[in-house]
Amino acid sequence: MIIDALQYANWSPKIFRQMREGGVDAVHVTIAYHENFREMVLNIERWNRWFEDYSDLICHARSGDDVRAAKASGRTAILFGFQNCSPIEDDIGLVEIVHTLGARFMQLSYNNQSLLATGCYESEDPGITRMGRQVIAEMNRVGLVIDMSHSAERSTLEAIEISGRPIAITHANPSCWHPALRNKSDSVLKALGESGGMIGFSLYPHHLKDKSDCSLESFCEMVARAAEIMGVAQLGIGSDLCQDHPDSVVEWMRVGRWTKEIDYGEGSRNDVGFPPMPSWFRDNRDFGKVEAGLRAVGFDAAEVAAIMGGNWLNFFDRSFGPQVQQAEAQPREVAE
Amino acid sequence: MIIDALQYANWSPKIFRQMREGGVDAVHVTIAYHENFREMVLNIERWNRWFEDYSDLICHARSGDDVRAAKASGRTAILFGFQNCSPIEDDIGLVEIVHTLGARFMQLSYNNQSLLATGCYESEDPGITRMGRQVIAEMNRVGLVIDMSHSAERSTLEAIEISGRPIAITHANPSCWHPALRNKSDSVLKALGESGGMIGFSLYPHHLKDKSDCSLESFCEMVARAAEIMGVAQLGIGSDLCQDHPDSVVEWMRVGRWTKEIDYGEGSRNDVGFPPMPSWFRDNRDFGKVEAGLRAVGFDAAEVAAIMGGNWLNFFDRSFGPQVQQAEAQPREVAE
Repeated sequence: MIIDALQYANWSPKIFRQMREGGVDAVHVTIAYHENFREMVLNIERWNRWFEDYSDLICHARSGDDVRAAKASGRTAILFGFQNCSPIEDDIGLVEIVHTLGARFMQLSYNNQSLLATGCYESEDPGITRMGRQVIAEMNRVGLVIDMSHSAERSTLEAIEISGRPIAITHANPSCWHPALRNKSDSVLKALGESGGMIGFSLYPHHLKDKSDCSLESFCEMVARAAEIMGVAQLGIGSDLCQDHPDSVVEWMRVGRWTKEIDYGEGSRNDVGFPPMPSWFRDNRDFGKVEAGLRAVGFDAAEVAAIMGGNWLNFFDRSFGPQVQQAEAQPREVAE
Repeated sequence: MIIDALQYANWSPKIFRQMREGGVDAVHVTIAYHENFREMVLNIERWNRWFEDYSDLICHARSGDDVRAAKASGRTAILFGFQNCSPIEDDIGLVEIVHTLGARFMQLSYNNQSLLATGCYESEDPGITRMGRQVIAEMNRVGLVIDMSHSAERSTLEAIEISGRPIAITHANPSCWHPALRNKSDSVLKALGESGGMIGFSLYPHHLKDKSDCSLESFCEMVARAAEIMGVAQLGIGSDLCQDHPDSVVEWMRVGRWTKEIDYGEGSRNDVGFPPMPSWFRDNRDFGKVEAGLRAVGFDAAEVAAIMGGNWLNFFDRSFGPQVQQAEAQPREVAE
């Protein structure tokens, strides 16, 4: 079972065929960066057309069992998620609506301050907001996973603490390996692991030591170090593969509509576009190389299988349905 | 099994309790008259709150099996539908989206010309439009039932003809019994019956002979006459109960945002608001009286059970899932 917990490609039948060629059983795809609810619905409509037109290659998945069924039918399961909370606007009722439409992950913030939490590029992080606490409880209730990949440290630690169910960091790496603002401290990794949460290791060059020149061995040694901090059962892959996009798309991801100036995000004035991928991970066809690399640094076959997809499948089984023990959820009262 | 194929009430726990008191197992509720997609979503959000707050009385249903499960748990199943095509705007992709959100019936037009078909109050009826043919095929594909309750004669006959699956007239009566513009000709009833479609008999006074003074016996004799035309298996109830609304709501239903003038619809200058219900059908508590009335005009117990809910349940089983035989659907090519 190979599961990739984040991709945002310029989707095409070519990429869907590469997913099959690489034996990828499920991919969590981003369907919103800055889109409001109505715009996000248009993105689902585009996916629905792809599901109809390429029904031999891909299908929509809402649960772990849907992923198993996709694998059994020789197709790649597609799970929807948002990298920002913009699709729920200022309306907690939209949490259930987007879950009904198939969303299974939602980041509480994307680089900037949101209505719910702080992003990793803000200078101040006041933590989870009043609305953020309410939305976390509602996400817990319906089975929409809290994703803190692009959120700031305090907000992330508070989300882990407040959430009644384990959360995810679908695509990031330990900052002790590569100190990017997007990567995560040992404190975050420990708290995430202890709470039963998951991290998906990113293959996006800005998150890698030596960026595009990062070696497979260095990447896999980083995974081994994270296993010591969090335990193997909390680890997965979240490649952040952004295949075939023109550079205008990384600008949309970084700038949205929130500024008239250019913001370089993880890049810089001299490094504006998407960085080249490491040679050993071009696209969906190269997950086998990561598997081999993990074996080479000492993980056994069962551990590699868990990291490559088994752990995410378990997490899906536990996370996407309605909350069983309501009592564990946060209280709904709004503080005065 | 008691199923009501149309209500639009000013929903409240009082009404939900009356549904339980009347032993009503399922109700198709209207969630859009003139609402666009985004506004319709807000109406679903309101229902979601009711499902949470009154989970002992009601639950959302998407299938015949959901209705059976609701009955088994002592609750009333709520099915969503639109009395107009306004929620899909001009976008065929929204057909699948609204089905995912739970919509199971959609009228192709409401009194006026729509993008898809003609309403029953227009003076000309050019039939199903170009977009209408495409949307019918898409509704067939996903399992969204075509409802022609408020549509004009030619459009209705063409919808029956074009649709690859049986359609419904959820709430209307034979015009041979009471010649209202909203009621249906024998030609429509015959074509509907021969195609496996369903009619739900309305208890809205403007659709009744002698209006609010209509007798139970007259209503039930009308049902018996319809059974001769269409066969018992195609008959159900669609009460059109509009309980507890202020008269401003009937104005919204009739006028929406399409005119600045007042349109009296089925009423008149001297009869502006909601008409009083017949004495023998106040609300959800009175379905038992209809059952007794049907027995009194000669239907046997099995026939009464079929008309009161069994036929709708069969129809739900056949209609709400994806189309099995794609070959029977209309071709997708757009004529030049």
